[in-house]
Amino acid sequence: MGLSASKKLSTGLKHCTLWKADRSPACRAVMMSLDAMNLSVTEVDINIDKEEHKTPQMLSLNPLQTLPVFKDRELVLCDSHAICTYLAGRYCDSGRLLPKDPGGRSIVDQHMHYNSGILYPRFRAAAYPILYGNCKYLNAQQIMDIECTYYDLECMLVGKCWFGGSWATLSDIIFASSVSTLNILVPVDKYKFPRLSGWLYRVSEELFYVTANKKGLCEFTKRIGELPQVQKS
Amino acid sequence: MGLSASKKLSTGLKHCTLWKADRSPACRAVMMSLDAMNLSVTEVDINIDKEEHKTPQMLSLNPLQTLPVFKDRELVLCDSHAICTYLAGRYCDSGRLLPKDPGGRSIVDQHMHYNSGILYPRFRAAAYPILYGNCKYLNAQQIMDIECTYYDLECMLVGKCWFGGSWATLSDIIFASSVSTLNILVPVDKYKFPRLSGWLYRVSEELFYVTANKKGLCEFTKRIGELPQVQKS
Repeated sequence: MGLSASKKLSTGLKHCTLWKADRSPACRAVMMSLDAMNLSVTEVDINIDKEEHKTPQMLSLNPLQTLPVFKDRELVLCDSHAICTYLAGRYCDSGRLLPKDPGGRSIVDQHMHYNSGILYPRFRAAAYPILYGNCKYLNAQQIMDIECTYYDLECMLVGKCWFGGSWATLSDIIFASSVSTLNILVPVDKYKFPRLSGWLYRVSEELFYVTANKKGLCEFTKRIGELPQVQKS
Repeated sequence: MGLSASKKLSTGLKHCTLWKADRSPACRAVMMSLDAMNLSVTEVDINIDKEEHKTPQMLSLNPLQTLPVFKDRELVLCDSHAICTYLAGRYCDSGRLLPKDPGGRSIVDQHMHYNSGILYPRFRAAAYPILYGNCKYLNAQQIMDIECTYYDLECMLVGKCWFGGSWATLSDIIFASSVSTLNILVPVDKYKFPRLSGWLYRVSEELFYVTANKKGLCEFTKRIGELPQVQKS
Protein backbone atom coordinates (compact mmCIF):
# COMPACT_ATOMS: atom_id res chain seq x y z
CA MET A 1 0.00 0.00 0.00
CA GLY A 2 2.78 2.37 1.02
CA LEU A 3 4.77 1.39 -2.02
CA SER A 4 1.84 1.97 -4.37
CA ALA A 5 1.30 5.41 -2.85
CA SER A 6 4.97 6.19 -3.38
CA LYS A 7 4.81 5.06 -6.99
CA LYS A 8 1.73 7.22 -7.62
CA LEU A 9 3.62 10.30 -6.50
CA SER A 10 6.51 9.72 -8.88
CA THR A 11 7.28 12.08 -11.76
CA GLY A 12 6.85 10.29 -15.07
CA LEU A 13 9.57 10.93 -17.63
CA LYS A 14 7.74 9.60 -20.67
CA HIS A 15 10.53 10.63 -23.04
CA CYS A 16 13.03 8.41 -21.21
CA THR A 17 13.51 4.66 -21.66
CA LEU A 18 15.58 2.21 -19.63
CA TRP A 19 16.50 -1.19 -21.06
CA LYS A 20 17.45 -3.45 -18.17
CA ALA A 21 17.74 -6.91 -16.66
CA ASP A 22 16.80 -7.09 -12.99
CA ARG A 23 19.50 -9.55 -12.02
CA SER A 24 22.26 -7.14 -13.11
CA PRO A 25 23.60 -5.03 -10.21
CA ALA A 26 24.33 -2.17 -12.62
CA CYS A 27 20.69 -2.10 -13.74
CA ARG A 28 19.46 -2.27 -10.16
CA ALA A 29 21.64 0.74 -9.27
CA VAL A 30 19.76 2.80 -11.88
CA MET A 31 16.38 1.42 -10.78
CA MET A 32 17.12 2.29 -7.13
CA SER A 33 18.26 5.78 -8.14
CA LEU A 34 15.02 6.35 -10.06
CA ASP A 35 12.94 5.22 -7.07
CA ALA A 36 15.02 7.30 -4.64
CA MET A 37 14.33 10.36 -6.81
CA ASN A 38 10.65 9.47 -7.29
CA LEU A 39 11.13 9.33 -11.04
CA SER A 40 9.64 6.80 -13.42
CA VAL A 41 10.66 6.02 -17.00
CA THR A 42 9.54 3.50 -19.61
CA GLU A 43 11.24 0.26 -18.61
CA VAL A 44 12.00 -2.53 -21.07
CA ASP A 45 13.05 -5.93 -19.74
CA ILE A 46 15.84 -7.56 -21.70
CA ASN A 47 16.39 -11.32 -21.48
CA ILE A 48 20.15 -11.77 -21.51
CA ASP A 49 19.88 -15.57 -21.76
CA LYS A 50 17.97 -15.11 -25.03
CA GLU A 51 20.63 -12.59 -26.15
CA GLU A 52 18.05 -9.83 -26.51
CA HIS A 53 20.83 -7.33 -25.72
CA LYS A 54 22.43 -8.28 -29.05
CA THR A 55 19.50 -7.49 -31.36
CA PRO A 56 20.21 -4.96 -34.14
CA GLN A 57 18.17 -2.32 -32.26
CA MET A 58 20.13 -2.82 -29.04
CA LEU A 59 23.47 -2.93 -30.86
CA SER A 60 22.67 0.36 -32.58
CA LEU A 61 22.06 1.88 -29.13
CA ASN A 62 25.02 0.20 -27.45
CA PRO A 63 27.70 -1.59 -29.48
CA LEU A 64 29.38 -2.63 -26.21
CA GLN A 65 26.48 -5.09 -25.62
CA THR A 66 26.10 -4.18 -21.96
CA LEU A 67 23.09 -3.30 -19.83
CA PRO A 68 21.62 -0.97 -18.70
CA VAL A 69 20.96 1.28 -21.68
CA PHE A 70 19.19 4.60 -21.10
CA LYS A 71 17.76 7.04 -23.61
CA ASP A 72 16.51 10.57 -23.00
CA ARG A 73 15.49 11.98 -26.40
CA GLU A 74 18.79 12.06 -28.38
CA LEU A 75 21.04 11.25 -25.44
CA VAL A 76 22.00 7.57 -25.06
CA LEU A 77 23.98 6.41 -22.01
CA CYS A 78 25.23 2.90 -21.32
CA ASP A 79 27.15 3.28 -18.08
CA SER A 80 25.10 2.91 -14.90
CA HIS A 81 27.15 5.47 -12.94
CA ALA A 82 26.81 8.08 -15.69
CA ILE A 83 23.06 7.37 -15.91
CA CYS A 84 22.57 7.82 -12.14
CA THR A 85 24.50 11.09 -11.96
CA TYR A 86 22.78 12.36 -15.13
CA LEU A 87 19.34 11.67 -13.64
CA ALA A 88 20.29 13.40 -10.38
CA GLY A 89 21.83 16.41 -12.16
CA ARG A 90 19.02 16.80 -14.70
CA TYR A 91 15.87 15.88 -12.76
CA CYS A 92 16.61 16.17 -9.04
CA ASP A 93 17.00 19.71 -7.73
CA SER A 94 17.66 19.00 -4.07
CA GLY A 95 21.28 17.87 -4.26
CA ARG A 96 20.51 15.35 -1.54
CA LEU A 97 21.57 12.31 -3.54
CA LEU A 98 24.32 14.08 -5.51
CA PRO A 99 25.76 17.22 -3.89
CA LYS A 100 25.88 20.27 -6.15
CA ASP A 101 29.12 21.70 -4.75
CA PRO A 102 32.27 20.37 -6.48
CA GLY A 103 33.77 19.05 -3.23
CA GLY A 104 30.70 17.07 -2.19
CA ARG A 105 30.19 15.73 -5.69
CA SER A 106 33.83 14.67 -5.95
CA ILE A 107 33.39 12.35 -2.96
CA VAL A 108 30.44 10.63 -4.67
CA ASP A 109 32.41 10.50 -7.94
CA GLN A 110 35.31 8.87 -6.11
CA HIS A 111 33.04 6.20 -4.65
CA MET A 112 31.56 5.57 -8.07
CA HIS A 113 34.99 5.10 -9.62
CA TYR A 114 35.89 2.68 -6.85
CA ASN A 115 32.78 0.74 -7.83
CA SER A 116 33.63 0.91 -11.56
CA GLY A 117 37.29 0.16 -11.21
CA ILE A 118 37.55 -2.30 -8.32
CA LEU A 119 34.24 -3.61 -6.99
CA TYR A 120 32.47 -4.34 -10.28
CA PRO A 121 35.45 -6.00 -12.03
CA ARG A 122 35.80 -8.33 -9.04
CA PHE A 123 32.10 -9.10 -9.16
CA ARG A 124 32.42 -9.80 -12.89
CA ALA A 125 35.48 -12.02 -12.41
CA ALA A 126 33.69 -14.10 -9.77
CA ALA A 127 30.11 -14.22 -11.08
CA TYR A 128 30.42 -14.43 -14.87
CA PRO A 129 32.10 -17.86 -14.98
CA ILE A 130 29.18 -19.12 -12.87
CA LEU A 131 26.45 -17.24 -14.75
CA TYR A 132 27.74 -17.84 -18.26
CA GLY A 133 30.22 -20.70 -17.96
CA ASN A 134 30.26 -24.07 -16.29
CA CYS A 135 31.96 -22.90 -13.14
CA LYS A 136 30.27 -23.78 -9.85
CA TYR A 137 32.65 -22.34 -7.30
CA LEU A 138 34.70 -19.28 -6.50
CA ASN A 139 38.42 -19.86 -6.21
CA ALA A 140 40.54 -18.72 -3.27
CA GLN A 141 41.94 -15.72 -5.16
CA GLN A 142 38.45 -14.48 -6.08
CA ILE A 143 37.28 -14.79 -2.46
CA MET A 144 40.38 -12.95 -1.23
CA ASP A 145 39.92 -10.18 -3.82
CA ILE A 146 36.30 -9.68 -2.74
CA GLU A 147 37.22 -9.65 0.95
CA CYS A 148 39.89 -7.03 0.18
CA THR A 149 37.16 -4.77 -1.24
CA TYR A 150 35.07 -5.37 1.89
CA TYR A 151 38.09 -4.22 3.90
CA ASP A 152 38.44 -1.06 1.76
CA LEU A 153 34.73 -0.29 2.23
CA GLU A 154 35.04 -0.94 5.98
CA CYS A 155 37.81 1.70 6.08
CA MET A 156 35.68 4.19 4.11
CA LEU A 157 32.91 3.86 6.72
CA VAL A 158 35.05 4.88 9.72
CA GLY A 159 33.03 7.40 11.73
CA LYS A 160 30.13 7.36 9.26
CA CYS A 161 26.74 5.68 8.96
CA TRP A 162 26.59 6.24 5.20
CA PHE A 163 29.33 6.48 2.58
CA GLY A 164 28.37 10.05 1.78
CA GLY A 165 28.19 11.02 5.46
CA SER A 166 24.91 11.59 7.29
CA TRP A 167 22.38 10.21 4.82
CA ALA A 168 22.15 7.87 1.84
CA THR A 169 23.49 9.34 -1.40
CA LEU A 170 24.20 7.87 -4.83
CA SER A 171 27.37 6.39 -3.30
CA ASP A 172 25.23 4.18 -1.06
CA ILE A 173 22.89 3.23 -3.89
CA ILE A 174 25.73 2.19 -6.20
CA PHE A 175 27.53 0.28 -3.44
CA ALA A 176 24.21 -1.30 -2.31
CA SER A 177 23.71 -2.84 -5.74
CA SER A 178 27.24 -4.31 -5.82
CA VAL A 179 27.69 -5.32 -2.18
CA SER A 180 24.25 -6.92 -1.80
CA THR A 181 25.10 -9.04 -4.86
CA LEU A 182 28.64 -9.89 -3.76
CA ASN A 183 27.18 -10.81 -0.36
CA ILE A 184 25.45 -13.74 -2.08
CA LEU A 185 28.81 -15.00 -3.32
CA VAL A 186 30.97 -14.13 -0.29
CA PRO A 187 28.85 -13.25 2.75
CA VAL A 188 29.90 -10.06 4.57
CA ASP A 189 31.16 -11.39 7.92
CA LYS A 190 29.74 -9.18 10.67
CA TYR A 191 32.70 -9.85 12.95
CA LYS A 192 35.37 -9.06 10.35
CA PHE A 193 33.46 -6.17 8.78
CA PRO A 194 31.12 -4.77 11.45
CA ARG A 195 30.65 -1.32 9.84
CA LEU A 196 29.99 -2.72 6.38
CA SER A 197 27.65 -5.33 7.77
CA GLY A 198 25.72 -2.67 9.73
CA TRP A 199 25.56 -0.43 6.67
CA LEU A 200 24.26 -3.32 4.51
CA TYR A 201 21.48 -3.90 7.03
CA ARG A 202 20.64 -0.17 7.15
CA VAL A 203 20.60 0.29 3.39
CA SER A 204 18.47 -2.85 2.92
CA GLU A 205 15.74 -1.15 4.95
CA GLU A 206 15.61 1.90 2.66
CA LEU A 207 12.47 2.07 0.52
CA PHE A 208 14.44 2.31 -2.76
CA TYR A 209 16.21 -0.96 -1.88
CA VAL A 210 12.94 -2.73 -1.12
CA THR A 211 11.21 -1.53 -4.30
CA ALA A 212 14.10 -1.78 -6.76
CA ASN A 213 16.80 -4.17 -5.53
CA LYS A 214 15.13 -7.09 -3.75
CA LYS A 215 13.43 -8.73 -6.73
CA GLY A 216 16.49 -8.70 -8.97
CA LEU A 217 18.72 -9.85 -6.13
CA CYS A 218 16.43 -12.87 -5.63
CA GLU A 219 16.66 -13.60 -9.37
CA PHE A 220 20.45 -13.43 -9.18
CA THR A 221 20.50 -15.71 -6.13
CA LYS A 222 18.23 -18.22 -7.84
CA ARG A 223 20.31 -18.16 -11.00
CA ILE A 224 23.55 -18.64 -9.11
CA GLY A 225 21.91 -21.76 -7.78
CA GLU A 226 22.06 -23.50 -4.50
CA LEU A 227 25.71 -22.95 -3.71
CA PRO A 228 25.70 -24.90 -0.43
CA GLN A 229 28.61 -22.83 0.74
CA VAL A 230 30.99 -20.67 -1.23
CA GLN A 231 33.87 -23.05 -1.66
CA LYS A 232 37.51 -22.62 -2.46
CA SER A 233 38.67 -24.60 -5.48
CA MET B 1 59.90 29.53 -24.62
CA GLY B 2 56.24 28.99 -25.37
CA LEU B 3 55.96 26.50 -22.56
CA SER B 4 57.62 28.81 -20.07
CA ALA B 5 55.24 31.59 -21.05
CA SER B 6 52.30 29.24 -20.62
CA LYS B 7 53.53 28.16 -17.20
CA LYS B 8 53.95 31.80 -16.13
CA LEU B 9 50.31 32.48 -16.91
CA SER B 10 49.02 29.61 -14.78
CA THR B 11 46.93 30.19 -11.67
CA GLY B 12 48.74 28.94 -8.60
CA LEU B 13 46.63 27.00 -6.11
CA LYS B 14 49.02 27.14 -3.18
CA HIS B 15 46.54 25.44 -0.85
CA CYS B 16 46.47 22.34 -3.08
CA THR B 17 49.01 19.48 -3.12
CA LEU B 18 49.38 16.60 -5.55
CA TRP B 19 51.43 13.53 -4.59
CA LYS B 20 52.32 11.71 -7.79
CA ALA B 21 54.65 9.44 -9.74
CA ASP B 22 55.19 10.48 -13.34
CA ARG B 23 55.23 6.98 -14.76
CA SER B 24 51.66 6.32 -13.53
CA PRO B 25 49.03 7.03 -16.22
CA ALA B 26 46.52 8.03 -13.52
CA CYS B 27 48.94 10.68 -12.19
CA ARG B 28 49.66 11.95 -15.71
CA ALA B 29 45.91 12.36 -16.32
CA VAL B 30 45.75 14.77 -13.38
CA MET B 31 48.94 16.57 -14.46
CA MET B 32 47.58 17.03 -18.00
CA SER B 33 44.27 18.31 -16.62
CA LEU B 34 46.09 20.87 -14.48
CA ASP B 35 48.12 22.08 -17.47
CA ALA B 36 45.05 22.16 -19.75
CA MET B 37 43.33 24.39 -17.16
CA ASN B 38 46.44 26.50 -16.58
CA LEU B 39 46.44 25.60 -12.91
CA SER B 40 49.46 24.79 -10.80
CA VAL B 41 49.58 23.10 -7.41
CA THR B 42 52.36 21.99 -5.08
CA GLU B 43 53.64 18.74 -6.55
CA VAL B 44 55.38 16.06 -4.51
CA ASP B 45 57.16 13.23 -6.30
CA ILE B 46 56.68 9.83 -4.72
CA ASN B 47 59.13 7.02 -5.43
CA ILE B 48 57.02 3.89 -5.66
CA ASP B 49 60.06 1.61 -5.88
CA LYS B 50 61.17 2.95 -2.50
CA GLU B 51 57.59 2.43 -1.21
CA GLU B 52 57.22 6.11 -0.35
CA HIS B 53 53.47 5.73 -0.98
CA LYS B 54 53.33 3.50 2.12
CA THR B 55 54.80 5.93 4.66
CA PRO B 56 52.58 6.69 7.69
CA GLN B 57 51.84 10.18 6.27
CA MET B 58 50.72 8.76 2.90
CA LEU B 59 48.71 5.95 4.51
CA SER B 60 46.87 8.47 6.67
CA LEU B 61 45.92 10.33 3.48
CA ASN B 62 45.14 7.23 1.44
CA PRO B 63 44.85 3.79 3.06
CA LEU B 64 44.35 2.27 -0.40
CA GLN B 65 48.07 2.93 -1.12
CA THR B 66 47.42 4.26 -4.63
CA LEU B 67 48.61 7.36 -6.44
CA PRO B 68 47.75 10.12 -7.19
CA VAL B 69 46.66 11.70 -3.92
CA PHE B 70 45.30 15.23 -4.00
CA LYS B 71 44.52 17.60 -1.13
CA ASP B 72 42.66 20.89 -1.23
CA ARG B 73 42.46 22.16 2.35
CA GLU B 74 40.38 19.48 4.16
CA LEU B 75 39.34 17.62 1.03
CA VAL B 76 41.44 14.57 0.13
CA LEU B 77 40.84 12.70 -3.13
CA CYS B 78 42.63 9.57 -4.32
CA ASP B 79 40.88 8.77 -7.60
CA SER B 80 42.34 10.47 -10.68
CA HIS B 81 38.95 10.83 -12.41
CA ALA B 82 37.37 12.43 -9.35
CA ILE B 83 40.38 14.76 -9.00
CA CYS B 84 40.15 15.88 -12.66
CA THR B 85 36.39 16.58 -12.54
CA TYR B 86 36.76 18.30 -9.16
CA LEU B 87 39.45 20.64 -10.52
CA ALA B 88 37.34 21.44 -13.58
CA GLY B 89 34.17 21.99 -11.54
CA ARG B 90 35.85 24.04 -8.82
CA TYR B 91 38.50 26.06 -10.67
CA CYS B 92 37.58 26.17 -14.36
CA ASP B 93 34.60 28.32 -15.26
CA SER B 94 34.48 27.80 -18.99
CA GLY B 95 32.96 24.31 -19.16
CA ARG B 96 35.23 23.62 -22.12
CA LEU B 97 36.94 20.60 -20.57
CA LEU B 98 33.91 19.44 -18.56
CA PRO B 99 30.50 20.59 -19.86
CA LYS B 100 28.27 22.19 -17.26
CA ASP B 101 24.97 20.86 -18.64
CA PRO B 102 24.03 17.40 -17.26
CA GLY B 103 23.83 15.82 -20.73
CA GLY B 104 27.29 16.98 -21.84
CA ARG B 105 28.82 16.08 -18.50
CA SER B 106 27.24 12.62 -18.58
CA ILE B 107 29.12 11.81 -21.79
CA VAL B 108 32.44 12.71 -20.15
CA ASP B 109 31.43 10.74 -17.04
CA GLN B 110 30.65 7.73 -19.22
CA HIS B 111 34.07 7.89 -20.88
CA MET B 112 35.70 8.18 -17.47
CA HIS B 113 33.90 5.10 -16.19
CA TYR B 114 34.97 3.19 -19.28
CA ASN B 115 38.53 4.16 -18.37
CA SER B 116 38.06 3.16 -14.70
CA GLY B 117 36.19 -0.03 -15.36
CA ILE B 118 37.71 -1.46 -18.55
CA LEU B 119 40.79 0.34 -19.82
CA TYR B 120 42.69 0.80 -16.56
CA PRO B 121 42.10 -2.74 -15.19
CA ARG B 122 43.44 -4.14 -18.47
CA PHE B 123 46.47 -1.87 -18.25
CA ARG B 124 46.99 -3.01 -14.66
CA ALA B 125 46.63 -6.70 -15.57
CA ALA B 126 49.21 -6.37 -18.34
CA ALA B 127 51.71 -3.92 -16.87
CA TYR B 128 51.90 -4.74 -13.15
CA PRO B 129 53.39 -8.24 -13.56
CA ILE B 130 56.12 -6.61 -15.66
CA LEU B 131 56.60 -3.57 -13.41
CA TYR B 132 56.41 -5.36 -10.08
CA GLY B 133 56.93 -9.06 -10.88
CA ASN B 134 59.35 -11.05 -12.93
CA CYS B 135 57.16 -11.18 -16.00
CA LYS B 136 58.76 -10.09 -19.28
CA TYR B 137 55.95 -10.63 -21.75
CA LEU B 138 52.25 -10.09 -22.28
CA ASN B 139 50.22 -13.23 -22.84
CA ALA B 140 47.81 -13.73 -25.73
CA GLN B 141 44.73 -13.05 -23.57
CA GLN B 142 46.17 -9.75 -22.31
CA ILE B 143 46.95 -8.62 -25.87
CA MET B 144 43.46 -9.61 -27.05
CA ASP B 145 41.82 -7.78 -24.11
CA ILE B 146 43.77 -4.62 -24.90
CA GLU B 147 42.93 -4.83 -28.62
CA CYS B 148 39.25 -5.23 -27.69
CA THR B 149 39.41 -1.91 -25.83
CA TYR B 150 41.06 -0.33 -28.90
CA TYR B 151 38.10 -1.60 -30.91
CA ASP B 152 35.62 -0.09 -28.42
CA LEU B 153 37.44 3.25 -28.58
CA GLU B 154 37.52 3.06 -32.40
CA CYS B 155 33.71 2.70 -32.33
CA MET B 156 33.36 5.67 -29.95
CA LEU B 157 35.27 7.87 -32.42
CA VAL B 158 32.92 7.29 -35.39
CA GLY B 159 32.23 10.69 -36.95
CA LYS B 160 34.31 12.53 -34.36
CA CYS B 161 37.83 13.96 -34.07
CA TRP B 162 37.72 13.97 -30.26
CA PHE B 163 35.89 11.74 -27.78
CA GLY B 164 33.87 14.68 -26.52
CA GLY B 165 33.06 15.88 -30.04
CA SER B 166 34.66 18.95 -31.58
CA TRP B 167 37.49 19.67 -29.17
CA ALA B 168 39.58 17.95 -26.49
CA THR B 169 37.78 17.49 -23.16
CA LEU B 170 38.62 15.59 -19.98
CA SER B 171 37.56 12.43 -21.87
CA ASP B 172 40.49 12.89 -24.24
CA ILE B 173 42.91 13.69 -21.43
CA ILE B 174 41.97 10.60 -19.43
CA PHE B 175 42.08 8.35 -22.49
CA ALA B 176 45.37 9.96 -23.62
CA SER B 177 47.04 8.91 -20.37
CA SER B 178 45.86 5.30 -20.68
CA VAL B 179 46.10 4.75 -24.44
CA SER B 180 49.55 6.36 -24.82
CA THR B 181 50.77 3.97 -22.11
CA LEU B 182 49.01 0.88 -23.49
CA ASN B 183 50.47 1.82 -26.89
CA ILE B 184 53.91 1.01 -25.45
CA LEU B 185 52.71 -2.50 -24.58
CA VAL B 186 50.46 -3.18 -27.59
CA PRO B 187 51.02 -0.64 -30.38
CA VAL B 188 47.82 0.85 -31.84
CA ASP B 189 47.81 -0.55 -35.40
CA LYS B 190 46.92 2.30 -37.77
CA TYR B 191 45.36 -0.08 -40.29
CA LYS B 192 43.17 -1.89 -37.75
CA PHE B 193 42.34 1.23 -35.73
CA PRO B 194 42.68 4.23 -38.07
CA ARG B 195 40.47 6.60 -36.04
CA LEU B 196 42.15 5.76 -32.72
CA SER B 197 45.57 6.00 -34.31
CA GLY B 198 44.71 9.41 -35.82
CA TRP B 199 43.32 10.61 -32.49
CA LEU B 200 46.46 9.45 -30.62
CA TYR B 201 48.59 11.47 -33.04
CA ARG B 202 46.33 14.54 -32.67
CA VAL B 203 46.22 14.40 -28.87
CA SER B 204 49.99 13.91 -28.68
CA GLU B 205 50.40 17.33 -30.33
CA GLU B 206 48.32 19.11 -27.67
CA LEU B 207 50.36 21.32 -25.36
CA PHE B 208 49.09 19.59 -22.19
CA TYR B 209 50.33 16.25 -23.56
CA VAL B 210 53.76 17.67 -24.35
CA THR B 211 54.17 19.35 -20.97
CA ALA B 212 52.62 16.71 -18.70
CA ASN B 213 52.57 13.30 -20.37
CA LYS B 214 55.75 12.87 -22.40
CA LYS B 215 58.29 12.74 -19.58
CA GLY B 216 56.37 10.16 -17.52
CA LEU B 217 55.62 8.10 -20.60
CA CYS B 218 59.36 7.93 -21.34
CA GLU B 219 59.98 6.81 -17.75
CA PHE B 220 57.35 4.10 -18.11
CA THR B 221 58.86 2.96 -21.41
CA LYS B 222 62.34 2.84 -19.91
CA ARG B 223 61.10 0.92 -16.88
CA ILE B 224 59.25 -1.60 -19.00
CA GLY B 225 62.59 -2.20 -20.62
CA GLU B 226 63.62 -3.09 -24.07
CA LEU B 227 60.78 -5.40 -24.99
CA PRO B 228 62.07 -6.25 -28.47
CA GLN B 229 58.54 -6.97 -29.55
CA VAL B 230 55.44 -7.57 -27.48
CA GLN B 231 55.38 -11.35 -27.48
CA LYS B 232 52.68 -13.88 -26.84
CA SER B 233 53.55 -16.42 -24.17
